[in-house]
Amino acid sequence: MATWVAGVGGNIVHAEQHTDRHDQVFFQRVEFTHADTVPLDALRAGFAAVAAGWNMDFSLNALPWRPRTAILCSRHLHCVADLLSRTTYGDLGLDVAAVVSNHADAQHLATSFGHAFVHVPVQDGPDGRAEQEETLGGVLDSLGVELVILARYMLVLPPSIVGAWTGRMINIHHSFLPAFVGANPYRQAHDRGVKVIGATAHYVSEILDEGPIIAQDVAHVSHRDDVADLTRIGRDLETTVLARAVRAHVEHRVLVWNNRTVVFG
Amino acid sequence: MATWVAGVGGNIVHAEQHTDRHDQVFFQRVEFTHADTVPLDALRAGFAAVAAGWNMDFSLNALPWRPRTAILCSRHLHCVADLLSRTTYGDLGLDVAAVVSNHADAQHLATSFGHAFVHVPVQDGPDGRAEQEETLGGVLDSLGVELVILARYMLVLPPSIVGAWTGRMINIHHSFLPAFVGANPYRQAHDRGVKVIGATAHYVSEILDEGPIIAQDVAHVSHRDDVADLTRIGRDLETTVLARAVRAHVEHRVLVWNNRTVVFG
Amino acid sequence: MATWVAGVGGNIVHAEQHTDRHDQVFFQRVEFTHADTVPLDALRAGFAAVAAGWNMDFSLNALPWRPRTAILCSRHLHCVADLLSRTTYGDLGLDVAAVVSNHADAQHLATSFGHAFVHVPVQDGPDGRAEQEETLGGVLDSLGVELVILARYMLVLPPSIVGAWTGRMINIHHSFLPAFVGANPYRQAHDRGVKVIGATAHYVSEILDEGPIIAQDVAHVSHRDDVADLTRIGRDLETTVLARAVRAHVEHRVLVWNNRTVVFG
Amino acid sequence: MATWVAGVGGNIVHAEQHTDRHDQVFFQRVEFTHADTVPLDALRAGFAAVAAGWNMDFSLNALPWRPRTAILCSRHLHCVADLLSRTTYGDLGLDVAAVVSNHADAQHLATSFGHAFVHVPVQDGPDGRAEQEETLGGVLDSLGVELVILARYMLVLPPSIVGAWTGRMINIHHSFLPAFVGANPYRQAHDRGVKVIGATAHYVSEILDEGPIIAQDVAHVSHRDDVADLTRIGRDLETTVLARAVRAHVEHRVLVWNNRTVVFG
Repeated sequence: MATWVAGVGGNIVHAEQHTDRHDQVFFQRVEFTHADTVPLDALRAGFAAVAAGWNMDFSLNALPWRPRTAILCSRHLHCVADLLSRTTYGDLGLDVAAVVSNHADAQHLATSFGHAFVHVPVQDGPDGRAEQEETLGGVLDSLGVELVILARYMLVLPPSIVGAWTGRMINIHHSFLPAFVGANPYRQAHDRGVKVIGATAHYVSEILDEGPIIAQDVAHVSHRDDVADLTRIGRDLETTVLARAVRAHVEHRVLVWNNRTVVFG
Repeated sequence: MATWVAGVGGNIVHAEQHTDRHDQVFFQRVEFTHADTVPLDALRAGFAAVAAGWNMDFSLNALPWRPRTAILCSRHLHCVADLLSRTTYGDLGLDVAAVVSNHADAQHLATSFGHAFVHVPVQDGPDGRAEQEETLGGVLDSLGVELVILARYMLVLPPSIVGAWTGRMINIHHSFLPAFVGANPYRQAHDRGVKVIGATAHYVSEILDEGPIIAQDVAHVSHRDDVADLTRIGRDLETTVLARAVRAHVEHRVLVWNNRTVVFG
Repeated sequence: MATWVAGVGGNIVHAEQHTDRHDQVFFQRVEFTHADTVPLDALRAGFAAVAAGWNMDFSLNALPWRPRTAILCSRHLHCVADLLSRTTYGDLGLDVAAVVSNHADAQHLATSFGHAFVHVPVQDGPDGRAEQEETLGGVLDSLGVELVILARYMLVLPPSIVGAWTGRMINIHHSFLPAFVGANPYRQAHDRGVKVIGATAHYVSEILDEGPIIAQDVAHVSHRDDVADLTRIGRDLETTVLARAVRAHVEHRVLVWNNRTVVFG
Repeated sequence: MATWVAGVGGNIVHAEQHTDRHDQVFFQRVEFTHADTVPLDALRAGFAAVAAGWNMDFSLNALPWRPRTAILCSRHLHCVADLLSRTTYGDLGLDVAAVVSNHADAQHLATSFGHAFVHVPVQDGPDGRAEQEETLGGVLDSLGVELVILARYMLVLPPSIVGAWTGRMINIHHSFLPAFVGANPYRQAHDRGVKVIGATAHYVSEILDEGPIIAQDVAHVSHRDDVADLTRIGRDLETTVLARAVRAHVEHRVLVWNNRTVVFG
């Protein structure tokens, strides 16, 4: 590796390995510089020849990556507000194409940060939901985005959308999965009487709340905390866990294997 | 309350309240001193008259309480070792009647701390397990204990035993319940790819791993941690969470309501 | 207390006590409702009569309180952005009078949230700093605010300002005080080789970084984290710890005693 | 490296790197197997030739390492009890040569685990302390140990002893250093009103509490916790942090550089 990098006029900046002993698979992430005269396509073609000799899958990407991104939400706006705030003033390098929602609540927020807002409401009637899903799928396609973030989007997405965005759609679920899948996890947590609550950021997969987990965190709670308290305490977990997962994805630090993630440091 | 305590020649040392707004139930724990001349029975009788006027359930107990205790374990000894060590050198005031196990591994440990060891193995044969359970039930009865601690006892107990010890039997489960009930939670956690693992101490109830939770804690893990790592990292969670729950119980700080606990500080 | 509250046509919603055994001081916070016909002044006058009989200091305030607030910052905007975002979309009820800064960086942020921005730069020359302090003091006075939040304001304030805002000015310091007071705490933390970093929200007092601590939190770090990593990791600590402290203050849950705080739940 | 390991008939089991960008130093830890026919001395000599070509410092050690160890303590026994318990029933592979103390309290504990106990009390009189230090130094020398653990040994050691055990003597300090150096850190923490307390395991160096930090952890506390509460809560921090540091040392995972540690995973 070092030899190959030297050959493209570069240096290894950071390297990390992981071996899955059970499956006998070796993972490696290498950050390297290269001579300006060597374009990305040439790097990819050159490394493909190396990889072919090692039975190795690889992807080679330029950093920093500023993916064109759609952020979906419903009525809880803390995650969207946090993502937009980090993008503008903080530690996230997203190129936000639009905020998309089934409700109008986020319109002012999106606009005040200078982003487009797309309202995709569910109309009344027996076909309302199906029509909304079709419209939404079209919106995501037409935006030309590379990443979709479900920042407390509260409708379950159809397989047609989930399938189109495998590995490129990140959801925040407001529990420490696999506990409390589905609706109202804070209510579920309260009723079970747990002493910790959590949040989980994961890639969306076809089975609800069962995709590969990227990041999780928890907070201690007590009998004094009712559902409203859990909801409030969980809010900070949701924003920080989602942001952490998105940042790892954008920095190309996440690999998926067997429905689990390797998250390089 | 303060008036009544003054009437028995005492003072309130500590008081804490909790109101369950949903169920409209008020909980209170009051630690108080009293004149030496007023025996416990008289205190109970006296307070019963007060309670009768308030539609109040109460229990009145002397502190410090040093309950006669049986500790059950199987082959993992870290929780037993920790409990015995705390009892002798640390922060737990248990009167250990015996260490009881379906395996012989804990014998030397129990003996070196000066405690009895009762070996209740499962014999081969179709009736082995049922006979063991009957013997075990008899052992617990004959020991005259007030508290049973399942310190990584790996056999599911029969309803006859569970029912006899409701609210007086504490188990440590090596996951953050309700995630990963049943066997091999660290294997389950690894296969799901979670980024936090946990431990849960709870009162044992008739449905496995569904009793009222007394204490929980978690630790962060990563893709680098295989099942053996999770097992090792979890060990410290198990010992500290179990000890914390036992201490709360022994200090009469735990109330059970609707399969949840109020744990006073 | 319950009797008095009943007398004003109300009920106790929440009550919490704390006894400082060393100093023999008793603290209590009671949230209660009252009849609409009894105005706040009458409540205060009425309770003053009760308090006089008990050698008790008290303050009686209406909730929710939406204090008129000035937020001060310099060039790091994550804390300001988080406070404004929470105020608009989240869990903080502040009436933001203005964002005030010695730099112009926050102007767009303040404006996009609909708030005034006051630029108080330090001019070149020997008297630049003194003049800036005088101007700043005047700005705070003229804004008519009840609360000042130092959201990563990087200039030490003069005693004249600190003294004017005792108990009403909250600062976020980017270390777990008392470790790493003063400048560049992440650099200090890195050089000392600590394995945890933290953030501390405290009332500002005359001695730098020695005021009463309201909230603290920490994150684990490792040798892999250089100063830039600590700075990034610490950012989430700073925003959540500051918001937690401000919320406690705004809900009248913080009492100061002997340079320590009682923070009711 | 892989080539060299193959040459000794082995495989790389685990490898981890770290680059200190500021100092431009590269650290690497490689765990590898080797043919039984190649003794440790031959491995060392062989690798020395490699290292000479790379301006590389190295140490090559056999695993598992079960170092002959002296554990020093005073009157608080929770850390010693925990270390002995882990050694016998848990996750620490120490060959305990003796428990050594200036008090007799640990005698029964050491004996019940089958270890020698050496009592080195401080006698009355002006020379008592100096004589004790001289005796203690002699005891450590005569025990032939490779590791000294200060498991709440409450006397400051003289430079003669500290200097003799550089990098081989681990202390647990009951605060998150650099906060609260010296005596009574829990009292100091209470008086400062902190909301987190901590524990720090570090190599002992000539300046008190300033040696390289190996592990730290913290717990949240509140105004309700007096010094006795902090002491009790801190006990679990002290035992787990010390054990974690000792385990890292025994597994040859700790490198010291510029008074900081690299702790490989």
